[in-house]
Amino acid sequence: MSRNDPIAALIDLMARLPGLGPRSARRVVLHLIRKRGALLQPLADAMQAVARSARECLNCGNVGTSDICEICESEARATGLLCVVEDVADLWAMERSGVFRGRYHVLGGTLSALDGVGPDDLRIPQLKSRLASEGITEVILALNATIDGQTTAHYIADELGGAVSVTSLAQGVPIGGELDYLDDGTITAALNARKAF
Amino acid sequence: MSRNDPIAALIDLMARLPGLGPRSARRVVLHLIRKRGALLQPLADAMQAVARSARECLNCGNVGTSDICEICESEARATGLLCVVEDVADLWAMERSGVFRGRYHVLGGTLSALDGVGPDDLRIPQLKSRLASEGITEVILALNATIDGQTTAHYIADELGGAVSVTSLAQGVPIGGELDYLDDGTITAALNARKAF
Ligand SMILES: [Zn+2]
Ligand SMILES: [Zn+2]
Repeated sequence: MSRNDPIAALIDLMARLPGLGPRSARRVVLHLIRKRGALLQPLADAMQAVARSARECLNCGNVGTSDICEICESEARATGLLCVVEDVADLWAMERSGVFRGRYHVLGGTLSALDGVGPDDLRIPQLKSRLASEGITEVILALNATIDGQTTAHYIADELGGAVSVTSLAQGVPIGGELDYLDDGTITAALNARKAF
Repeated sequence: MSRNDPIAALIDLMARLPGLGPRSARRVVLHLIRKRGALLQPLADAMQAVARSARECLNCGNVGTSDICEICESEARATGLLCVVEDVADLWAMERSGVFRGRYHVLGGTLSALDGVGPDDLRIPQLKSRLASEGITEVILALNATIDGQTTAHYIADELGGAVSVTSLAQGVPIGGELDYLDDGTITAALNARKAF
């Protein structure tokens, strides 16, 4: 296999995907070549379609195929509730649960002194301007339970304080979670938030 | 994200790649959307090129972009040595080592009574016909050190017996290998094949 052939070029590109390395890229490409008709061609077409049409929602930062995403467009989701998440993967996770019927705001990361990420590097100015324009009454902070996530949550709560009600997801033992596998912080949070049985 | 949009379709296809599942497929697709210009578009183009041009070498089973692969075409590799491997990934691994200058024969699997794989399901008939047509003097069996791999090696050695010299890769401790991490079979093989120091 010479390094200028299309197979080698495909392996090199696949190896740049998160979670893949050269070895898994080679394995994936061999699989794709074996399934040229059933998988490789449809995948190439799907990538072409996404490359052509995917864009970020100008309002919330969700990804979709139009300038304003389906969720922002939907009048049914104009509930006055706004769920703030770090990235689109978190928005998708919330949507899979099917329980939240409001709209989202994707920050695009968390504040981080270490990485030099400040409020203007995230979608925090846009968040503020949405409160009035969309008649938001409650902002739910669904940020990750990491130090950066919680720092960001506190910052936003301070910024919005008074204008709207600000809440956050409950912390505790995940459904099906075994205490033995939980970190101390989760157990502490669950204990502090204990309820009458 | 509605399930009929191109982003959802791409995630579904990516989740069918070996080693990826729904979660890593979502992560990869989000990464691709963020890097539409630098990664997604080149990847779509590379897949298109491979889908259009990739094929199996009619002689040896290697993958390439022509009916006869570069290795089979190369007169420099007509050394009389033929290295038999299970699949193309193994051929690539041998090529990366850079030490073998003969040609290959890719079986396309191993004999397996359990999975109903017999000699005619592999490229064993083609292997026999290459011996004379390419003036092969030695067949090196570079099959995996698994039960099926070794069963297949024994079968091929019996079939070719007498016609050519048949050898196999040495078994032993891998370079940098720590005894503590090796299985008993490897240690036994290494001990049985011990050499004067
Ligand atoms: Zn939106
Ligand atoms: Zn070939």
